[in-house]
Formats: sequence, C-alpha cells, structure tokens
Amino acid sequence: MITSADNDKLKTIRKLQQKRWRNKLGLFTAEGEDLVHPGAEFILRSGVDVEPELLDAVSTLGSGTRVIGVYKQRWAEPSGDILVYLHGVEDPGNVGTIIRSAHALADATVVLGPGSADPYSPKAVRASMGSIFDRPPARATIDELDGHKVALSATAERELSDLEVTKPVVLVLGSERGALPDGLEDVRIPVHADSLNVAMAASVALYEVANRMAADG
Amino acid sequence: MITSADNDKLKTIRKLQQKRWRNKLGLFTAEGEDLVHPGAEFILRSGVDVEPELLDAVSTLGSGTRVIGVYKQRWAEPSGDILVYLHGVEDPGNVGTIIRSAHALADATVVLGPGSADPYSPKAVRASMGSIFDRPPARATIDELDGHKVALSATAERELSDLEVTKPVVLVLGSERGALPDGLEDVRIPVHADSLNVAMAASVALYEVANRMAADG
Repeated sequence: MITSADNDKLKTIRKLQQKRWRNKLGLFTAEGEDLVHPGAEFILRSGVDVEPELLDAVSTLGSGTRVIGVYKQRWAEPSGDILVYLHGVEDPGNVGTIIRSAHALADATVVLGPGSADPYSPKAVRASMGSIFDRPPARATIDELDGHKVALSATAERELSDLEVTKPVVLVLGSERGALPDGLEDVRIPVHADSLNVAMAASVALYEVANRMAADG
Repeated sequence: MITSADNDKLKTIRKLQQKRWRNKLGLFTAEGEDLVHPGAEFILRSGVDVEPELLDAVSTLGSGTRVIGVYKQRWAEPSGDILVYLHGVEDPGNVGTIIRSAHALADATVVLGPGSADPYSPKAVRASMGSIFDRPPARATIDELDGHKVALSATAERELSDLEVTKPVVLVLGSERGALPDGLEDVRIPVHADSLNVAMAASVALYEVANRMAADG
C-alpha cells in the first residue's frame, strides 16, 4: 500500500496530466472503473494499492476516484474506408467524443491534424470512453492522406445528403470558428441555427457516409 | 460599480447555481460574452458594473469571466413536427447539447421528462449555446405528448433508417444505461461499439428524421 505522495507511480500519474510529459513518456492515464482496461503498465486501486487521499490528489476527477491505470500511447496508421481528419479541433472533450462516435458509427480511425487537442489528455480519454483503446488515433497532415477528402463547412453549397461517396472517404472537420484546409470539396449539414457543435457535425456525417457505403455494398 | 460581495445582484447569481433557487425564482444565468443575450433582468460586466474579483467569485466559469446575465426561465408548449423527449438524461452537458442540436438540425423543441437534468443549469445553458433562448425547452410526461413516439434503443430490432416517419414524431431518448418508457416502438442506430453518447444518438436521429420529412415534403 502506497502511503507517501513521493511514490514514483504517483509522481508519474501527476506528470501525465501535462501534454509535455505525456509526449515525453509516451504514456497516458485512464481514470475510473468505466475506463480502466487490460494491458496497463500499472493500475492503482484506491484503498488497495494506495491510500484514497493520495489517489484523489493525483486524479483529474477529484475525490472518490476508485482507480487509475497508466497505459502506453498507441498510434494507428491512417487507413480504412472512412477516416475523420481533425484540423484545429482544440477542445479535448470534442476530440474524445469524435473518437467514440467514429468507432461507434463507422468503425473509423480519427486522424489528428495540426492544432488539434491531444487525444490522450485525461478529458479526451474520458470522453472517448473505451474507444481510445479499441480505435487508437492517428497523426498526419491532410496532404499525407489519400482518398476522397470532403470538408464539412457551414458555408458549402452542396448538402451532405447530395454527396457522392467513393471509398476511401476522409471527412475533414475544423473548429467551429476556425478555417479549414484549402482546396477541398465541401458539403454542409442543413441547419436552422448559427452553428452545430463539431462533435455533432462529425456524428451526423459519419452516420450518413457509413449508411451510404453500407447501402452501396 | 459593485464593490461588495453582499450586493443583492451578486447574491442572486450565487443562488442561481442551485436548482432549488432556480426553480423558486424562475431565473437562470448565462455566463460569458458568447451567451449573454438581449432581454436580461440584469447584466453585470466585469470592471464596468462590478469589480472583476467579485464577478469571478460568483461565476461557474471561474476567473476571467467578462459578463453574467440573469434571465427569466421560459418554458415552451410541446408542439411542432418533431419533438425530442428526454427520459432520465441526467447529465446537464448532454441536455444542453441536445437542445442545441434539436434547434440546429430540426428546429425542434426538447421536452424534459422525469429524471432529466435542469436545462437551466449553468452547464446546460453553456452547452446549448444560444439555443436555450431561441428554442426554450418544454416539460411533460411521455403520456402527455401526442404523436408517433419512437424510442432510440441499442437493443431494438429495426434500424433508424427503416423507420416510417409520420408527423408529428416524438424521439424518445434515455440515459445511456437507464430504461426507457414501456410500450413504445423502438429503433436502433447501427453501431460497432458498446454504445453511443446520448447527445450523438439524438443528433443522428434528428438529422435522419428531419431529412426524411423534408424529402417527403
């Protein structure tokens, strides 16, 4: 039972709250019983492996955290019939939610482009639920990807439902207010409001494209 | 310029962090320049109407909050071609996100059923962006609603894309692990993972149903 905050495992968990250390160590944390997964480097259970107050003190969830696991980061190759490319999606909750939706709706890999949040931050890992383990993300620039690149844009003329889908498709999403890469075909989701959350836009586009591909065989 | 934490407006804002007081006063807060809206009961601007530290101290966003507005809660009648009924959706972020998506994708009203989070909590208001003002929510039980009631359920046999849409439609969503009301027709969104976030499921269903209604004329 760990009884000192100077313990090396606790120090590692504390460091992994910072992107700099996650990059350096190639590790990340998953907090809570819903998220811990086989294959951890190590797992600390509250009251079993470590005193509860000490685990609470290194948790981003705060008091009452039951378990924290530390894992090796895994990065996929950007391949498959559908990819989701994120350009400057800065909110880690949105990045994690899109990883979850891409897995659920299209069994698709999410590719982190420049300016996007770290998918291995605690908030992104939590939002991804188990999907960060099942469908690890990829890293690339838009030019490194092959396929039919389609940007979701509020100002596009063509509607998503009029898109002709050819495999592989790269769905390109940006931040709600930021610019998208130049020179891509673009489509829009018809909306009655000013804007749609980027994770919602991603889910709708993934559903539409996956459905269309399934119908085409 | 307000210079004391004992000021009545600051006290009101502090109370409105609690559901009990929101219900009692029939008011809610919107924090941040993105969210404040015309028609406030009162607005406090940091450094103009109130000392910055005092505004920060009553904000749920914390330090650097520029403005907080206090508004009367408005509740709509549950009407329109598409309604979204939430049964036990406890997370205020999901409730707010669904209000935003319902507005954006289908110009639809969200109906809060038993056990759902308060849509006027600070977190829900924030997630709704402006949509809580444009499409105020409604309150009802499922039996009080008329229309073609369709529950989104992971265990349904029929797929969403095979649903026959007749107006008005009531899309029924529950918490990711909770039960749904009995006796409703149910459909599922085909998924490759264990589950889909309830706000993502709502967005996909709203898109599909709104699209189908538009195509039918």
